Amino acid sequence: MRPLLLALPGNEVLGGRLAALLEAEHAVPEIHYFPDGETYVRINADVKARDIIIVCSLDRPDAKFLPLIFLAETAKDLKARTVALICPYLAYMRQDTRFKPGEGITSAYFAKALSRHFDWLVTVDPHLHRRKSLSEIYMIPAATVHAGAAIAAWVRDNVPVPLIVGPDSESAQWVAAVARGANAPYIVAEKQRHGDHDVEVSVPDISPWRDRTPVMVDDIISTAHTLIETVRALQTAGASDIVAAGVHGLFAATAYDELSAAGAVKIVTCNTIAHPSNAIDVTAILAGAARELMRAHKSR
Amino acid sequence: MRPLLLALPGNEVLGGRLAALLEAEHAVPEIHYFPDGETYVRINADVKARDIIIVCSLDRPDAKFLPLIFLAETAKDLKARTVALICPYLAYMRQDTRFKPGEGITSAYFAKALSRHFDWLVTVDPHLHRRKSLSEIYMIPAATVHAGAAIAAWVRDNVPVPLIVGPDSESAQWVAAVARGANAPYIVAEKQRHGDHDVEVSVPDISPWRDRTPVMVDDIISTAHTLIETVRALQTAGASDIVAAGVHGLFAATAYDELSAAGAVKIVTCNTIAHPSNAIDVTAILAGAARELMRAHKSR
Repeated sequence: MRPLLLALPGNEVLGGRLAALLEAEHAVPEIHYFPDGETYVRINADVKARDIIIVCSLDRPDAKFLPLIFLAETAKDLKARTVALICPYLAYMRQDTRFKPGEGITSAYFAKALSRHFDWLVTVDPHLHRRKSLSEIYMIPAATVHAGAAIAAWVRDNVPVPLIVGPDSESAQWVAAVARGANAPYIVAEKQRHGDHDVEVSVPDISPWRDRTPVMVDDIISTAHTLIETVRALQTAGASDIVAAGVHGLFAATAYDELSAAGAVKIVTCNTIAHPSNAIDVTAILAGAARELMRAHKSR
Repeated sequence: MRPLLLALPGNEVLGGRLAALLEAEHAVPEIHYFPDGETYVRINADVKARDIIIVCSLDRPDAKFLPLIFLAETAKDLKARTVALICPYLAYMRQDTRFKPGEGITSAYFAKALSRHFDWLVTVDPHLHRRKSLSEIYMIPAATVHAGAAIAAWVRDNVPVPLIVGPDSESAQWVAAVARGANAPYIVAEKQRHGDHDVEVSVPDISPWRDRTPVMVDDIISTAHTLIETVRALQTAGASDIVAAGVHGLFAATAYDELSAAGAVKIVTCNTIAHPSNAIDVTAILAGAARELMRAHKSR
């Protein structure tokens, strides 16, 4: 029997594309919010003995967690063979250590809680910092796919003479790979973070690349403060017509408008979080990883 | 060492009162929301080898669940001896069976998920319908305390000549007990529910009690539609000056104002969910049950 793919609200477009590539049935689960703030879930499709794939991006995760695990448990209750998660954006990757005494290491707690409900998961470029791989915190097969090549291809196709700009030294390796893929030179900015909303950025001399269009690349665009400060530093250095490309466009509050107003003439993101800026399609790489995980899970 | 009591945001007042009765240290955990919608938790107090009591009412539960379990896991990580939950209002008690094929039985999934993070819990009058006790779905000691006597005492002290009014036949036994405690007669309305927002109510002849003040009692006031229809039925039957008393004042959207506008001259609730209508204190009964559970847990 074909796998059954269920997309949570907000993930329907990506869900439809994934279902087509995975030759899965695409059903929209019934999710209803009661007046008292509780969530109702129902699966209007045959579940018994099938492989179920749930699609849910976990930006703004707190209110999404219970509906997501309720859907997974409903599938198990209805005797699904396996229940898996395609989670284009994975939450709670930041707090990966105890910076101050008494802090909760939420990345570990979240990973453990999520792992209980799925047989495997796949995600796009999780924010791994102190950790090398998801398997350090996830108790299930957790595959990572990379959007770098897709971003490089977009740059190649859309920006005639680009200069790739990395926002900080942490991202240098990733930025270098994107630049290689885009056949472009790159520079890396220096970032000093003084708090959630206070970031200072400086860029190296860009005079050798005056004729090039700067394309800032980043993994997550949340407040966009880093990119806004990078735009300003690039402008001070004489650049204009700056492009911003992100893997995950979270765009907290007015971040998108602020980045645009600061002078980013084009802002593009991957379709890991549904947003009008989605211009880079990661469906195929997600489907590829999902297909492999399904096969591996069957042969166990 | 004294127990450490941690109240989640919105539970600070009840938390302070409970800490006093339980002779516990009361610390306010640091809960911070990042711009990207993730939650940060930190406990600024000694946790190691102590009994931790977390206070969190679970009205509007979806966004509260992750911060709550993160706090519990942080306490465990910091080597707490036990981690318990005082949950004055317990969520997800409604969907206790599969009414239509494919539905999720969220009460069971929620109970299982919550049970994993605590050693015991205590709550006030959970909405048990098809189930006899919380132990059918909770895997930890889960004690229930009853607000009926406290409501009866409030009626005795505040309504000189009351007539207790139950909203439906399901509540008849509970309403009878409140009436006995308040030394008052009671009637029970007939309710027909046609949907979340469509309820039809009729009341028996109240002419024998024309001189009495009707006091409607209910376990949960959510949309208040049942009580609003009961007010109308009582008014049609000739009553005025109608009082509404609830255990849990959820008050979805404009429910409080609508109930007031319909003609409830006084609306009172227990302090299980912080709200200006809180007039009935359940702190002592919660503390009593918590003390017993702590003792039982120590002697195991």
